Amino acid sequence: MKKTLLTLAVLSTASVAYADEGMWMPQQLPQVAKQLKAAGLQLDPKNLTKLTEFPMGAIVSLGGCSASFVSPQGLVATNHHCVYGSVAYNSKPGRDLLANGFLANTLEEELPAQPGSRIFVTKEVNNVTDKIIDKDTAKLTGKKRVDAIEKNSKALVSACEKDEGHRCNVYPYYGGLEFYMIKQMEIRDVRLVHAPAEGVGKFGGDTDNWMWPRHTGDYGFYRAYVSKDGKAADYSKDNVPYVPKHFLKLAKDGLKEGDFVMVLGYPGRTNRHRLPSEVAYTFDWNYPAFVKSSGETLAIIAKETAGNDDARLKYASQVAGINNYYKNRQGMLDSYAGSDFLARKTKEHEELKAWVNGNPERAKQFGEDLVQVEKLIAARDAQSKQEFYLGSSFPRLLGTARTLYRLANERVKPDAERKAGFQERDLPRFKAGVESLERSYVESVDKALVLNNLKKYAAQSKAERNADFDAAIGISDNMSEADLKALLDKIYAGSKLADKAARTAWLAAKPADFKTSDDSFIKAAVAMYDGFMKREAEDEELAGKIQQAYANYMKAKIAYMTSKGQAVYPDANSTLRVTFGKVAGRDHGTADGLAWSAFTTVNGIPPKATGKGEFNAPAAQLAAIKAKDFGKYVDPHLKAVPLAYLATLDITGGNSGSAALNAKGEFIGLAFDGTLDSIISDWDFNKAKTRSIQVDLRYMLWQMKHVDKADKLIKEMGAE
Amino acid sequence: MKKTLLTLAVLSTASVAYADEGMWMPQQLPQVAKQLKAAGLQLDPKNLTKLTEFPMGAIVSLGGCSASFVSPQGLVATNHHCVYGSVAYNSKPGRDLLANGFLANTLEEELPAQPGSRIFVTKEVNNVTDKIIDKDTAKLTGKKRVDAIEKNSKALVSACEKDEGHRCNVYPYYGGLEFYMIKQMEIRDVRLVHAPAEGVGKFGGDTDNWMWPRHTGDYGFYRAYVSKDGKAADYSKDNVPYVPKHFLKLAKDGLKEGDFVMVLGYPGRTNRHRLPSEVAYTFDWNYPAFVKSSGETLAIIAKETAGNDDARLKYASQVAGINNYYKNRQGMLDSYAGSDFLARKTKEHEELKAWVNGNPERAKQFGEDLVQVEKLIAARDAQSKQEFYLGSSFPRLLGTARTLYRLANERVKPDAERKAGFQERDLPRFKAGVESLERSYVESVDKALVLNNLKKYAAQSKAERNADFDAAIGISDNMSEADLKALLDKIYAGSKLADKAARTAWLAAKPADFKTSDDSFIKAAVAMYDGFMKREAEDEELAGKIQQAYANYMKAKIAYMTSKGQAVYPDANSTLRVTFGKVAGRDHGTADGLAWSAFTTVNGIPPKATGKGEFNAPAAQLAAIKAKDFGKYVDPHLKAVPLAYLATLDITGGNSGSAALNAKGEFIGLAFDGTLDSIISDWDFNKAKTRSIQVDLRYMLWQMKHVDKADKLIKEMGAE
Repeated sequence: MKKTLLTLAVLSTASVAYADEGMWMPQQLPQVAKQLKAAGLQLDPKNLTKLTEFPMGAIVSLGGCSASFVSPQGLVATNHHCVYGSVAYNSKPGRDLLANGFLANTLEEELPAQPGSRIFVTKEVNNVTDKIIDKDTAKLTGKKRVDAIEKNSKALVSACEKDEGHRCNVYPYYGGLEFYMIKQMEIRDVRLVHAPAEGVGKFGGDTDNWMWPRHTGDYGFYRAYVSKDGKAADYSKDNVPYVPKHFLKLAKDGLKEGDFVMVLGYPGRTNRHRLPSEVAYTFDWNYPAFVKSSGETLAIIAKETAGNDDARLKYASQVAGINNYYKNRQGMLDSYAGSDFLARKTKEHEELKAWVNGNPERAKQFGEDLVQVEKLIAARDAQSKQEFYLGSSFPRLLGTARTLYRLANERVKPDAERKAGFQERDLPRFKAGVESLERSYVESVDKALVLNNLKKYAAQSKAERNADFDAAIGISDNMSEADLKALLDKIYAGSKLADKAARTAWLAAKPADFKTSDDSFIKAAVAMYDGFMKREAEDEELAGKIQQAYANYMKAKIAYMTSKGQAVYPDANSTLRVTFGKVAGRDHGTADGLAWSAFTTVNGIPPKATGKGEFNAPAAQLAAIKAKDFGKYVDPHLKAVPLAYLATLDITGGNSGSAALNAKGEFIGLAFDGTLDSIISDWDFNKAKTRSIQVDLRYMLWQMKHVDKADKLIKEMGAE
Repeated sequence: MKKTLLTLAVLSTASVAYADEGMWMPQQLPQVAKQLKAAGLQLDPKNLTKLTEFPMGAIVSLGGCSASFVSPQGLVATNHHCVYGSVAYNSKPGRDLLANGFLANTLEEELPAQPGSRIFVTKEVNNVTDKIIDKDTAKLTGKKRVDAIEKNSKALVSACEKDEGHRCNVYPYYGGLEFYMIKQMEIRDVRLVHAPAEGVGKFGGDTDNWMWPRHTGDYGFYRAYVSKDGKAADYSKDNVPYVPKHFLKLAKDGLKEGDFVMVLGYPGRTNRHRLPSEVAYTFDWNYPAFVKSSGETLAIIAKETAGNDDARLKYASQVAGINNYYKNRQGMLDSYAGSDFLARKTKEHEELKAWVNGNPERAKQFGEDLVQVEKLIAARDAQSKQEFYLGSSFPRLLGTARTLYRLANERVKPDAERKAGFQERDLPRFKAGVESLERSYVESVDKALVLNNLKKYAAQSKAERNADFDAAIGISDNMSEADLKALLDKIYAGSKLADKAARTAWLAAKPADFKTSDDSFIKAAVAMYDGFMKREAEDEELAGKIQQAYANYMKAKIAYMTSKGQAVYPDANSTLRVTFGKVAGRDHGTADGLAWSAFTTVNGIPPKATGKGEFNAPAAQLAAIKAKDFGKYVDPHLKAVPLAYLATLDITGGNSGSAALNAKGEFIGLAFDGTLDSIISDWDFNKAKTRSIQVDLRYMLWQMKHVDKADKLIKEMGAE
């Protein structure tokens, strides 16, 4: 499923704990100690609550992907699709690392990961609810509330980040009822160590994505580097491998069906307790619109990059991401179409309201917010719907111009008063993004994509359109496609932002420099600035009201669940979580009469291998399979090397690259996907259907030893 | 698998009883009463031993297929592929019953089944070992022994068949150690009542044959007719439906995974305790040769009948049969290729020999026969190998001429002295076969098939060829294909046997008439007669020796197994057997990572339905599925009409059409197939892999009620 996290959770909600369902905060694990023991965990659950001890201390975030230290020299295991961008970044015509794979035989041969790559090591987690919603903030509403929350948050973050080389973030839990600040060491020198050939690491490609049976060797390795004194530092050839306090040990024994397994990682977002109206908006309008638009985007990129290897490589990562979400959303829509989800959701919400209103005290505490939250969410959804095409009608460089101008305006203020994302702490990543743009940008492709969306935007009535955008770009009623194309040709031709030097120069510019520029995109960005700032303030006014009402709604919901004896864990919000379950097939698959075995093996590769495209298994691998050159990695029951396995784990986007551990806490593979007919579990958990897909450690080691000759790396991980 | 029985067992052997393995003689069931109870049977196992009581009294044989009475008016349920020949027989261009299906709305509309169709109702089973191998016979050897066994058998049969309308047969059990005589009422007026469209009854065709997931509605109905006084009789419009003493009741509750299920029927042949040399001969030579030859035969029939509907219909049944065996044998060969079967078999045989020779008394009793049986079997196999092409080089009408002349010669003798197959009791079926020949014969097709085989036969050295056949047909060394074709053209042109009247006239002819005929096939048959009779005597000499040695080898084997505490049931030999087990999917299928669910449902039909060929599901059926018009036949868990199910039952060819019964002995569907990767179980039972496939009663009733409007038939079976 390519469980990377492309969008961050804005609000997180809460869910009920059933067996196998549950993304537990580490500190909650003692609450489910009995279940963990029953499931087979041999460690003391209390150990799992200690974030800087084994095994939690070995778990890291890549920001969007999860990962873990697997050697004392800072070696990090994650998914192939999590290092994909770095492999693509280091590829060029004639040196196609994507196709051929990459293995550094020495530290010197390791390659810098793509700009902006980070390894985050969690150091502290603190409940800061009282500091974020302090007495004064609690009295505020609307934009003022949002501003106060942001101010409090920034103050905490700023104090925390005084400890150089660290990054601190405040995350809302239970829909903003609680807030935790998480302090992480931010390793900035990240290097690519090993990635198998795309014919292994992405075997099956988009065809097999979200599918079972699966034969994708979705693993790759980074290494964390720090300065000689052990501090986080920018890339330098003088840097040395980071020595983690803890790293995971490789399991000596293979898994089998029924075995305990747990996954530690950073799931991004689940929506299991959204309002009925949010379900309806999402499934009846937003996802269908997204699917349609994504299909068009993919077709345009394919057409515009055809026969152009350079352009194809530049858009490869974006195409993979869109394909992933395209299939994901369509899969959810398919499940939704045949389900009673909305009706059930509506019924549950009515029951909650009845429970609240059935008691005067509860009615007083929650009643009004329950009414308000529905109205406010409806207003927000209506706005999102209206602005659907506006968002995708921005030329990429206009977006860049806009954020550069915003940066210039924010920089005029003291750091603490700047908008989050534009503070000093944000500048390195901001700069890296601006600098590396051309590695994933081709003007002709961008223009074609924008034109396609702009046609739909421009076809809306004036009232539905954004006046500031219209004025800045030159949109008026009844423009033909030719008009729009001419308009785009002119604005693209009038900008030098595609040039790296010209673009990065704006990073240091003052607002006045922007106002006097004749660069077409800069001019447009300046022209629409005030109007968009006004819109942002309106959005924040609404967001503040929603935060207030939503938190109270969630409080009511938790109280209601608790009254029914149901424990509650917070919905995923990109923070460290634990999910546990067992290795298990499924009694029904997706084709009538076929079920799912718990494991696939390398024997499934040759029947799929077409020798090209998405199924281009390397010849050396196929030869090893044919010769049954399985070594010690053969499973005695399966009589082949196990490749991937299904487990009853509750994971979602962001869990990609998460370490899967056995009952002893030993590394046993990597979570990398779910299955299409169960991904609606992000909204509506289905115990019978939901399965996570992990690549089996035995396959990783077999491929590394018997095919890719990565013996040295295996030795570094303490195996042979 | 189209488990019809095209070849009859010559020798049956014995096997060991494991759970789920076992084709039990009804009288043996009390021996496994404990297992039956544990498996969930709710009837008293003793009831199953009473062949003329419920439920055994309802089980019948069609001679090659199994079936059962399912109404008090002699309605018989069996597989679609068991009534296929009768549907084809009643089809003609413009009235394609195969394609459209057939439903008689009244008794008057029921159609005569194809000539030779029979329904056999078992009345008595008696152990006649002492009468077959009486004191005198026990002293004989070679041909004399065979003749004595045949004489004793015929005497018993003749006495038994004094009861008009009955057929009696003596069957060898445990490799000829024991003999039982079975007396059956032989119902000769069989009529076709209902068969669904081929797009239901043969849905999936040869592509899906032996496969899972399966969506074949393999059911059809005959009705047994007798004279007004209840006796078996030839077809007459005055005949009336037979009133069986017992008939099966339809189950009211649907099956689910894990439920007890048993199958009662007439399995044809298993070979689980053959000699290692027989395994080697079969799998290393005979089956590969068969597969090659069958492939050629199918290609020739396809080519010769292309664009000729009449010819296609005439060969449809034969093509289905060959396809079935072709896939069956190839499936066995595939399993054999990856197995240690021969090595294991050899080791087991060596252990038996060591056990025998490790004790002087046993060595004396069995030692010499163990040596002999290996030599004799080797000699027989060598002969079969040499004559492989001879058998298939006979023009069909030459075969007919040969049996007609044999009949004339046999008829000169008193009935009791005639060869089995040529006695008065055999004449009606003999006659029907001769009469109906042109319904499945097209000269051009036959000639092309013979030419293809004759080329290979003629290419053998003179020593390898049959001198009598050569002389009669005109084969000499080094003949070219053109020579052979000219020879065939001449001999086909010189015969009038293709003409029904001319052919059937020979049924009454005397040997002298044959000797003076100038019909080319008759002349050839006469010319080769003495030589082939000599060969037959030689074969019988060998067969007599084999029978003697093989029976003693089996006695040794049973003693050895018994010494190890292992119970033994006789291998299948076309007699009534019971197998029991449970409804169960499989933890591994045939594709890596996919397992098998226990059930398929009607929801699996639309994705397969191409609208033509083998996957031509009727439009009315597809519409009913789309509309979810499932009525009361929906399974609450599967949420659709269950179509077919897997069970751990030990069945083989001949079990086709067998009733599947639930724990209460109620009708719950029909066995019709096994799966390709487990059919080697006929030789080497594999508990983990072996599954039988049954069509679910709920699918039969749903299709009959919701699509084919056969409400009247459902009512006749006591349901609604």
